[in-house]
Amino acid sequence: MERIVPRTLPGFMELLPSDQILFNKIKNTISSVYEKYGFTPLDTPLIELSSVLLAKAGGETEKQIYRFNKGDNDLSLRFDLTVPLAKYVAKNYNELVFPFKAYQIGKVYRGERTQKGRYREFYQCDIDIIGEDNLSLINDAVIPSVIYEIFKELNFGKFQIHINNRKILNGVLEHLELNDSEILRIIDKFDKISKEKLYEMLNEIKANIADFIIPFIEIDGSNDKILEDLSNLNIDNETYKNGIFELKTVIDYLRDLGIDEEYFKIDLKIARGLDYYTGTVYETKLVGHEDIGSVCSGGRYDNLAEYYIDKKLPGVGMSIGLTRLFSKLKEANLINNIHNSIISALIIPMDNNVKYSYDICRLLRENNVIADVCNMEKGFKQKMNFANRLGIKTVIIIGENEINNNFVSIKNMETGVQEKINKENLIEYFKNN
Amino acid sequence: MERIVPRTLPGFMELLPSDQILFNKIKNTISSVYEKYGFTPLDTPLIELSSVLLAKAGGETEKQIYRFNKGDNDLSLRFDLTVPLAKYVAKNYNELVFPFKAYQIGKVYRGERTQKGRYREFYQCDIDIIGEDNLSLINDAVIPSVIYEIFKELNFGKFQIHINNRKILNGVLEHLELNDSEILRIIDKFDKISKEKLYEMLNEIKANIADFIIPFIEIDGSNDKILEDLSNLNIDNETYKNGIFELKTVIDYLRDLGIDEEYFKIDLKIARGLDYYTGTVYETKLVGHEDIGSVCSGGRYDNLAEYYIDKKLPGVGMSIGLTRLFSKLKEANLINNIHNSIISALIIPMDNNVKYSYDICRLLRENNVIADVCNMEKGFKQKMNFANRLGIKTVIIIGENEINNNFVSIKNMETGVQEKINKENLIEYFKNN
Repeated sequence: MERIVPRTLPGFMELLPSDQILFNKIKNTISSVYEKYGFTPLDTPLIELSSVLLAKAGGETEKQIYRFNKGDNDLSLRFDLTVPLAKYVAKNYNELVFPFKAYQIGKVYRGERTQKGRYREFYQCDIDIIGEDNLSLINDAVIPSVIYEIFKELNFGKFQIHINNRKILNGVLEHLELNDSEILRIIDKFDKISKEKLYEMLNEIKANIADFIIPFIEIDGSNDKILEDLSNLNIDNETYKNGIFELKTVIDYLRDLGIDEEYFKIDLKIARGLDYYTGTVYETKLVGHEDIGSVCSGGRYDNLAEYYIDKKLPGVGMSIGLTRLFSKLKEANLINNIHNSIISALIIPMDNNVKYSYDICRLLRENNVIADVCNMEKGFKQKMNFANRLGIKTVIIIGENEINNNFVSIKNMETGVQEKINKENLIEYFKNN
Repeated sequence: MERIVPRTLPGFMELLPSDQILFNKIKNTISSVYEKYGFTPLDTPLIELSSVLLAKAGGETEKQIYRFNKGDNDLSLRFDLTVPLAKYVAKNYNELVFPFKAYQIGKVYRGERTQKGRYREFYQCDIDIIGEDNLSLINDAVIPSVIYEIFKELNFGKFQIHINNRKILNGVLEHLELNDSEILRIIDKFDKISKEKLYEMLNEIKANIADFIIPFIEIDGSNDKILEDLSNLNIDNETYKNGIFELKTVIDYLRDLGIDEEYFKIDLKIARGLDYYTGTVYETKLVGHEDIGSVCSGGRYDNLAEYYIDKKLPGVGMSIGLTRLFSKLKEANLINNIHNSIISALIIPMDNNVKYSYDICRLLRENNVIADVCNMEKGFKQKMNFANRLGIKTVIIIGENEINNNFVSIKNMETGVQEKINKENLIEYFKNN
């Protein structure tokens, strides 16, 4: 028989069990915190009509789309979760209650050139709060407060949510009599290119503006000091003043929500180049691993679904690019899993005592211990080898002696310690070990 | 501005919040039971090279595939989770530990003609145990024992796992000197077509065989009685006898595993027309709702990955077609959700007391109550209306009086009862309500 090589496409992450367990643990933490904060789950199709999905897209995005025909339909795979959310909200506008708080965790597709750390299929984990006509600024603090709890729980180390407001940057451009979104894209690259190059690129757009813009975005210090410095600058257009007011309000709300001040920081370098954002913008950095880039970004937008519906739907949201984050965390050795199985306790029957072994197993499962019976028709040594290869922590050995005297032999595979435990004390053992 | 109608493709399920919450509850029950039983999570790509995915496919399946080119690659969307599992196991053969117990819950794609209850994008929830060279028959009982626990927990009402063994049917065909898989496909239709039609179809294949086959597959009674009746028939080829031995062994193991006898039943009508299955086969019916058809099916196979690898990998598995199941359960009014939100407790601040409200909210969240603050800049009536439209059960009202005297006013929206609770007793209240 001629066999096909079982390949996986480049740019598609497919994990071995130990990594998949780790990946799911992170994914489950994200979804459970989203839910704890009251965000409703959404699950939109991966395939949409191209006319619907690409209502707004253009340029680079459109080139990367997976697009094809099936029957008479021109279809595309979603390339983010924001467009499907906009479609969903517009389509179900009359059924939804606003402000609408929703989260979605799912795969999206971009046919990028494959290179290290770039994926063609990847998870995004989005939360959004969408208002009708208007949406209180407190939501611009609620969104990062959820992300704060997630990264606290994930415990990868110290992190900081960097916050800015697009109106401040727009106010500066207004002040300089500039109207060029190219400048925002240059500011976004601040940490990636040299200072000389930055001066050059900015001054190319208009002579001498670099001397103003660069010291401006480098303003640093405590959150209060930055806000004070911003107010003291001699810029007095409405856009700029609004931006400072919004930023100050959001910072105050973050304090009201109980977020530890060392976890959020005003950062005037954050521009988020997209036209989409209109107010607060966020990026999140792992302290000491800034080279990973932002692990969770987002911002405030004025109008979620204007391509589909004649209603003003302002919102604010953030997104974790989980697939890329996972690969970067692995690379930086910030996460690791030595277990090839989710099983905590493996029961090894010495003889053919199926019933007794599964009785013990059921007892453990009923008490939330992930347990299983090693039911291979093989010798004891091979069963222990199986447990070892899976990286099981606790092995429960059951022979004739154990059954007759109503106890089990428990071996901690990490310490090598083996002890006899009465069946009645088994659950107690797992509470303590 | 010209707007695009925000449509979703026919055959693609996209749920409103109340249904999505219900759907996810079922999906989470399935995954958590799979994990409790020690099955490792897998997450394979939705897109594969067509040459890899279609190594085995043909006929009807191939016509339904979503297939397209991207760059130089001929790609397809997966149409089930079994082929990706086979590819995964073959590809990672040296890294995996056998028997390999894995589960996968994910979307698959088939471009079927759209009709009621047929989906083009749908979830499958698969569990499989895969051995190397051989796999103990006890696993043919382990798999339905997991499904048993899932449907017990889901609590849709009484259900029965129907079990048969393909060797028994093959033995009967051997006995009748027939070698025609068409007969298995006819048997699969037993409940869907009239008795006359069945006689006609069977006798068309070979004269008078219907008189033997139909009474045979109608053998009924307790599991023990059916096994006895089967043994008493005058058929004595090895295939048939092996089939009875395997079926009896699996039934005995199901009893050893503590499965209540009224939840599983030998059913000689189960043929599972695919060539793929070689031993035990399963279907699951909701008692009183047999018209829904099987809600979870599967069986034993000899060779998972022969198209990819020169290793014998026998296995056994079952799959829940969740999207179709969900739509059928809704249709039959077996499930319902009156809440448009996952929030249990909504805090309504009367004035601008952000900090106190979020303190209460954090306290509840820390104690696993899904809580949120209604932070709309609107009046009390509109906030209560918001709570009503979401179907929130408990509303916590916070005004100046409450803050100054350290209590909250709690209103049960179902009973209309409102009471004052000291902040210290708040968690206690949620434990009892």
